[in-house]
Amino acid sequence: MTTTVALAGGVGAAKFLRGLCQIVSPNNLLIVGNTGDDLELYGLHISPDLDIVMYTLAGVIDETKGWGIKDDTFYFIDSLRSLGFETWFRIGDRDLATHVIRTQLLAERATLAEVTAQLCGKFGVKAKLTPMTNEKVRTKILSGDRTINFQEYFVKNETKDEVKDVFFQGADNAEPAPGIIEAITQAERIIICPSNPILSIGPILAIPGIREAIMKRKAETVAISPIIAGKALKGPADKVLASMGYEASARGVAEYYKGFINRLVIDRADSAQKPELEKLGFEITIADTVMKRIEDSVSLAKVAAG
Amino acid sequence: MTTTVALAGGVGAAKFLRGLCQIVSPNNLLIVGNTGDDLELYGLHISPDLDIVMYTLAGVIDETKGWGIKDDTFYFIDSLRSLGFETWFRIGDRDLATHVIRTQLLAERATLAEVTAQLCGKFGVKAKLTPMTNEKVRTKILSGDRTINFQEYFVKNETKDEVKDVFFQGADNAEPAPGIIEAITQAERIIICPSNPILSIGPILAIPGIREAIMKRKAETVAISPIIAGKALKGPADKVLASMGYEASARGVAEYYKGFINRLVIDRADSAQKPELEKLGFEITIADTVMKRIEDSVSLAKVAAG
Repeated sequence: MTTTVALAGGVGAAKFLRGLCQIVSPNNLLIVGNTGDDLELYGLHISPDLDIVMYTLAGVIDETKGWGIKDDTFYFIDSLRSLGFETWFRIGDRDLATHVIRTQLLAERATLAEVTAQLCGKFGVKAKLTPMTNEKVRTKILSGDRTINFQEYFVKNETKDEVKDVFFQGADNAEPAPGIIEAITQAERIIICPSNPILSIGPILAIPGIREAIMKRKAETVAISPIIAGKALKGPADKVLASMGYEASARGVAEYYKGFINRLVIDRADSAQKPELEKLGFEITIADTVMKRIEDSVSLAKVAAG
Repeated sequence: MTTTVALAGGVGAAKFLRGLCQIVSPNNLLIVGNTGDDLELYGLHISPDLDIVMYTLAGVIDETKGWGIKDDTFYFIDSLRSLGFETWFRIGDRDLATHVIRTQLLAERATLAEVTAQLCGKFGVKAKLTPMTNEKVRTKILSGDRTINFQEYFVKNETKDEVKDVFFQGADNAEPAPGIIEAITQAERIIICPSNPILSIGPILAIPGIREAIMKRKAETVAISPIIAGKALKGPADKVLASMGYEASARGVAEYYKGFINRLVIDRADSAQKPELEKLGFEITIADTVMKRIEDSVSLAKVAAG
């Protein structure tokens, strides 16, 4: 029985979920992962956000990089480079095992949800991790008059492109992966992890049915602001909020989630915004949201799940 | 203009070809490689014999193992093992780059010949290497009443299975890769490398048209016996000749190639068989056929091409 549903992007979500798994039973936790930033590279299907969550919960994440497997080597990708191929997306040799198996199973007609469950089993992850959809949805960045694939924007160009618009190719016709709507409907609580609202949570909310299901459970839904004192800890969440017309602040995050969350957890640094946000109808919890140690993650998870 | 065509299996052929490339212009050499021992593993298309030849001519072969890339690491395959997957076919991290690119290009509808040409270009191999066919032909071993895939027989079971019969699935309907028949027809010489006659050269000869084309050029065709004093230097050529009803000897090799070679190069250790083989109609050249150093390969190549 799922009692907690968490919507998750990459690094921030993974750190939070590591704490959450210590205060709720992982068996009763469904993590809905963003696959809008999936990519096909060298014929391989890569799901960066799912992998960051999976590796983190498995205890094998490279915490310094924030992605990939700790102590991984890069002989494969360096060989590709020396053969003259483009290698802006770094894949470790151990990490590669995940992508090769995922690609093989997908080619054998398994769904991405089935593959993810199998990989999580192999990595000893007890929480249930599911892609938001089994279908192909790809986050695209409109910059100037060019449309850029998400990972080109994020990794290749290091988020330097101006973001004029964001869209989720394929989302309109995609279905939520099996079990997501039911879990949202029945969960005790729904947690939107501290991820980039537009680029990481946005794709999940763009899958028809998911946003609507959460709206019906608004009273049980809490989000954690990934913006602290106007800045994202990591990644371009602040820049993207601003360029999409939101304030780069807890207030901006609240605006983005308005209508389907009841409670917002904001950082102590943003305490001054509490009264104003309450006036907008949000229940506001102040907490320390920077997660450096596992204890920080557990504390924040207690606040969010409490 | 192709002036030399070489039919090649794996390690023995590769060592010989390394010498041959020093005495004929690589630009005028077409190497027809065996793909009967190709396999699909983890969704990857692996061509062991093509790779051994390519890596050897590129100077990156692991000479100790006889396959793979020197100083390669095995983090990818060890990760697969620790995740609980079967890993009897060892793939190095650098070697993997080749298989991933090959698989990707094939998925994008390139032919195996085109992919091989592209990979050889990347590796700086000047000789033209082509698979015997662009189609799927797979060497199968009948052992008892079981049919075993070639690499399971060769690598997984370490050639311990009794070989009752050998067949080349898909060969009857396969076509030679583009250019092979023309090259054989026009070549100054055709060399059958010192490879396993039945398991490495057999698949090439099983592609309709190749054997017939060589028969027409019998006078220009020479083979090098891979059997020395009744033994194969490496691999099961002796055992397989015996179990398929041939003598495990230079004579057995001569019998197998009867009708489409004119000249056979045999090892000095087998000099005593010369008169008898000459009586069977072969021109016999005695040589030192063990190739330990590059000089040995060059000497043998001079004898074969001479």
